[in-house]
Amino acid sequence: MNVNKDLQNERNKCSFNVRELTEFIDGGKNRTLERKHIEKLILAQKDELFGGTPEDYLSHKEKYERAIQTNVIILKIVQDFMRDANGGDLTNYRDVLTTLLNFVVSREGTPFALHFMMFLPVFLSQADEEQQMEWLPRAWNCNIIGSYAQTELGHGTFIRGLETTATYDAATKEFVLHSPTVTSYKWWPGALGHTANYCVVVAQLHTKGQCHGIHSFIVQVRDEETHMPLAGIRVGEIGAKMGLNMINNGFIGFNHVRIPRRHLLMKHAQVLEDGTYVKSRNSKLNYGAMVFVRVVIVFDSVNYLSKAVTIATRFAAVRRQSQLKANEPECQIIDFLTQQHKLFIGIATCHALKMTATKLWDTFNEVQQQLRGGNLERLPELHALACCLKAVSTADTAALAEGGRRACGGHGYMRSSGLPQTCAVLDAACTFEGDNTVLLLQTARFLVKVWRGLDTLKLTPTVAYLRTTLTEGFNDKWENTVEGIIKGFQTVSMRKISECVSCMAKRIMSGMSQEEAWNMTSVQLVAAAESHCRVIIISYFHEEFVKVSSSFSPALRRVMKLLVELYTLYWALDKLQDLLKYTSISKTNTEQLQERYEDTLNALRPDAVGLVDAFDIMDEILQSTLGAYDGRVYERLMEEALKSPLNAEPVNRSFHQYLKPLMQGKL
Amino acid sequence: MNVNKDLQNERNKCSFNVRELTEFIDGGKNRTLERKHIEKLILAQKDELFGGTPEDYLSHKEKYERAIQTNVIILKIVQDFMRDANGGDLTNYRDVLTTLLNFVVSREGTPFALHFMMFLPVFLSQADEEQQMEWLPRAWNCNIIGSYAQTELGHGTFIRGLETTATYDAATKEFVLHSPTVTSYKWWPGALGHTANYCVVVAQLHTKGQCHGIHSFIVQVRDEETHMPLAGIRVGEIGAKMGLNMINNGFIGFNHVRIPRRHLLMKHAQVLEDGTYVKSRNSKLNYGAMVFVRVVIVFDSVNYLSKAVTIATRFAAVRRQSQLKANEPECQIIDFLTQQHKLFIGIATCHALKMTATKLWDTFNEVQQQLRGGNLERLPELHALACCLKAVSTADTAALAEGGRRACGGHGYMRSSGLPQTCAVLDAACTFEGDNTVLLLQTARFLVKVWRGLDTLKLTPTVAYLRTTLTEGFNDKWENTVEGIIKGFQTVSMRKISECVSCMAKRIMSGMSQEEAWNMTSVQLVAAAESHCRVIIISYFHEEFVKVSSSFSPALRRVMKLLVELYTLYWALDKLQDLLKYTSISKTNTEQLQERYEDTLNALRPDAVGLVDAFDIMDEILQSTLGAYDGRVYERLMEEALKSPLNAEPVNRSFHQYLKPLMQGKL
Repeated sequence: MNVNKDLQNERNKCSFNVRELTEFIDGGKNRTLERKHIEKLILAQKDELFGGTPEDYLSHKEKYERAIQTNVIILKIVQDFMRDANGGDLTNYRDVLTTLLNFVVSREGTPFALHFMMFLPVFLSQADEEQQMEWLPRAWNCNIIGSYAQTELGHGTFIRGLETTATYDAATKEFVLHSPTVTSYKWWPGALGHTANYCVVVAQLHTKGQCHGIHSFIVQVRDEETHMPLAGIRVGEIGAKMGLNMINNGFIGFNHVRIPRRHLLMKHAQVLEDGTYVKSRNSKLNYGAMVFVRVVIVFDSVNYLSKAVTIATRFAAVRRQSQLKANEPECQIIDFLTQQHKLFIGIATCHALKMTATKLWDTFNEVQQQLRGGNLERLPELHALACCLKAVSTADTAALAEGGRRACGGHGYMRSSGLPQTCAVLDAACTFEGDNTVLLLQTARFLVKVWRGLDTLKLTPTVAYLRTTLTEGFNDKWENTVEGIIKGFQTVSMRKISECVSCMAKRIMSGMSQEEAWNMTSVQLVAAAESHCRVIIISYFHEEFVKVSSSFSPALRRVMKLLVELYTLYWALDKLQDLLKYTSISKTNTEQLQERYEDTLNALRPDAVGLVDAFDIMDEILQSTLGAYDGRVYERLMEEALKSPLNAEPVNRSFHQYLKPLMQGKL
Repeated sequence: MNVNKDLQNERNKCSFNVRELTEFIDGGKNRTLERKHIEKLILAQKDELFGGTPEDYLSHKEKYERAIQTNVIILKIVQDFMRDANGGDLTNYRDVLTTLLNFVVSREGTPFALHFMMFLPVFLSQADEEQQMEWLPRAWNCNIIGSYAQTELGHGTFIRGLETTATYDAATKEFVLHSPTVTSYKWWPGALGHTANYCVVVAQLHTKGQCHGIHSFIVQVRDEETHMPLAGIRVGEIGAKMGLNMINNGFIGFNHVRIPRRHLLMKHAQVLEDGTYVKSRNSKLNYGAMVFVRVVIVFDSVNYLSKAVTIATRFAAVRRQSQLKANEPECQIIDFLTQQHKLFIGIATCHALKMTATKLWDTFNEVQQQLRGGNLERLPELHALACCLKAVSTADTAALAEGGRRACGGHGYMRSSGLPQTCAVLDAACTFEGDNTVLLLQTARFLVKVWRGLDTLKLTPTVAYLRTTLTEGFNDKWENTVEGIIKGFQTVSMRKISECVSCMAKRIMSGMSQEEAWNMTSVQLVAAAESHCRVIIISYFHEEFVKVSSSFSPALRRVMKLLVELYTLYWALDKLQDLLKYTSISKTNTEQLQERYEDTLNALRPDAVGLVDAFDIMDEILQSTLGAYDGRVYERLMEEALKSPLNAEPVNRSFHQYLKPLMQGKL
């Protein structure tokens, strides 16, 4: 391979073994081998997958058709691998799913994402055993393709307000699904437009004249042979979006559509033949699937951010612009501190969030044991954690990817760079599966509850610091170390929650209702929940690093330690106003932090390319003119431009029709 | 008109006269009338402009063809109006240009933008009188369409490094244009792809064996009759981008292309017939066109931000979601403080930036007088100001528009909302016409120079505060007023510049070179330049408000005063770490600021819809399902979805080709 010499030079001077880090990121040597095995199978069908006009030049409709074509091929390849995995075990399922998501080669998502990411997990967590026996094997083998329809045109966040009804008719032992208004149309479900033939539909369950709130139903949407929508169903796609145009998001409306009683998913609640409603034992059990989905979102966000930083970092090593010193040749832009400041935090964030999400997931799986024993004690805590972690991860990765995109200057605006599409995926995650602001307020509600019960409640592990920080005092001497900063953040979080509670109390005293006081304090509550999340991420990253690094070679340990430090310093400086307000940090301390941050950027500089190489994203998945392994940036930009159908003709027909008459004053 | 009743209700309770504010925003009653006159002409051609398949469903090539079709119509309409304006006077020209930009009805820009925004202004500022006589009338009438080609594949920021050469051949009295490498291809010029037939090209001027650096040349690119590229020219479009796909950005390469000597623009420097080079009197004179372009960018960014906040604010009034109190109906989401926090700062920012840019432009025009008299004293200052103002404005408007987009939840991700396209335009502005980081460093360089000469230099007005703040001391008692906060920001800016200078000195003492020290301090230098810009924007906004508000009715004065306060409080809280670090603000002060900010949001709440109505953007230009004047949000979302060509058939052909075989296990 003919590699750009600056990039080669970076690789030559890398201080650690890239493969060692890759295997750590993959989760072990075997998983790296597995991944490379699948990659080889994908490359074997390179022409069909990557040939033809690039997707960016296609119309919306053509994009969909391309998406089906390529994703069916990928799915088939991954399916072989997936068949070995145990479909019933969510622990494994997460691995399988993230593997699948790794291999999305269409840059605007895949119409099969919903089937694996929502339809199957929801079905697993809400269908009873008999229902699972009936549907799961077919779903698992993609004999049917499912979607998940919850959100409506008029309702997203407030699911209690959903309008779709499912009314039980004991005479025929059927539910009647109905969409009474425009706003009750389901809107957004991925794959539902023209791909899925089945769907889990969330609707208000009515039986014996009473509404029992929202429940999930499995509904056949299209005929299995002809794919025509079934009678009474109006289904289509919702139209062009900012990104993810290959997800095939759809709408669906029901006009008194009848489905059998047993299409209500009955693991938790049931409706008997005569219409008697049998309540769920515990509504909190649904938290399980929600924690799952949010953890997957964090992993997927990391996945996309690692693409963005790979592209931007390699480009920064190839691009030469301006002189650091007069009369010297132009320098690699990665030598500019401002550039390092934009990029290296992105690399650190990939590791920080991945380790945090892994630990959350492991903890959740331990807690599953307790759940089976009927102990639900830690469920609200883990749910609150999944909420804020989803919010903070998606917001951070979106901001950092956009920062990386801008760090490539104009070239980062080219779709051939892959960056706009990557940013658009990350942006979407900020509002889907729970709007970030709403999620942070859910976490805040939990924290306020904990704070108010601080004297009496038994504190679960992730909030235990609230009491210890309060007890041990927060005016201790500030320490400019990772541990010291974590302690500082704990103090910040504790003080912010405490202030929110006081602030609300003051407002209630002055005559506001509880709800008004909550609303008036909500900007601060969001900030408090974010602070809590920062405590968790930074301390998990630090703790996990300490734990795993014993198995690292000294060289890898050194560079990963720098990333942990960089991450901590970055956030200390970013949230300096909190530290200044709530801790004993001095102005001199802050200046030292700034200097250490700048020194850490410099220390990471020689290993930056090695660090992104370690993500080991093959060119065919990265699909970037700026980020390809060989660094042939300019040649690729030109090659891709020449693929534009506009460039197939020297003069476009619009010249004769419109431009010429304009220029010759004959319009 | 059948208006959503919540939206109507907002309008009924608005406390001020919306038309009064509209006329202020337009710049007077007559300009509002003018604008409405043009709008009427546009509406008369509604079918041709807005009919057919929505642009979001078109292929890249079809989008270009649509862009030419619609923009020729718009151009023709605006041309009549423009003919009256004086083509030689840049003061008027800015008005004409911003009027034109107001009427871009394609949501991904117009291929004629470059002609008016770069080609004409550059030509005006660099061509000598004879050249202007020759070219200007034809350019002004669009008999020729121009572009401006400076950036190359390999060079953007560092224009001294441009590779394109223009070598004078005294024998034939011609320049020979040549692109020696792939990286020397011009890349990015708008309209250059398939639209422009002329172009100002920036190239390294060689004559008599010597290089005299970069100069501008006017070059014919395509035949006026056939539009075919001329011999030796390789021209095409650069391909799909994140947004602005109707700008028709192009590339161009020259293979020893000969142009007459008089195609060098000769207002400043000349090459005589024998090849003798005559130097420009003052290279700083080119700053004029740069200040112009950057001011236009600020106005255009405000233009797009006002679209985004109009959409998001109207949607927030129509959308009802969740309950503020249990058992009450769902509330308008605009009642949530977190929503007000995301939106109202956007409204305030439109006014703050518009007033600041207007004042900068007026100042610049006053300074033009001095320039004609040979006094260039204020030019570096205004250039530094235009740099940071462009950077901060584009970054702020991009962030706030994206915030507004996310505030609409999932629906803000729909292209039919108009928000993704609006955000993509604003994102582009962060890296074009000077990368924001690079621009802030230019401002920083000016500030450092001023700081180092504080004792001896005569300080120009926009930096005079540096000395007064230093002299008057910055440990004064903090005041929680707009004036107090401005003083606080002045202290912050002064202290940051001072710290950067000390920090660099320290580094140089410890052995670093001047340049290394600058680079290692550059993250802090960028922050210092931003602080300086914040001082300017907030104080200009405040001063201009005080000046103009005497002519406002009391009701309008009240609401505009709230916007000035909101803007000041928002940035005080956002930059609290600076205030805590560098001023005497106390923790109690900060709590009061937070409370006042929350109260100000509430105070603005009833007028929010009125405030965005006052931007008076007609539906056909806003083009948003979420933001239309009548608030028929859900109906419009559905109507637009049904226009998707994918929805024209119940079953897409890809089902038979790929999906069915997959589902039936026959792949």
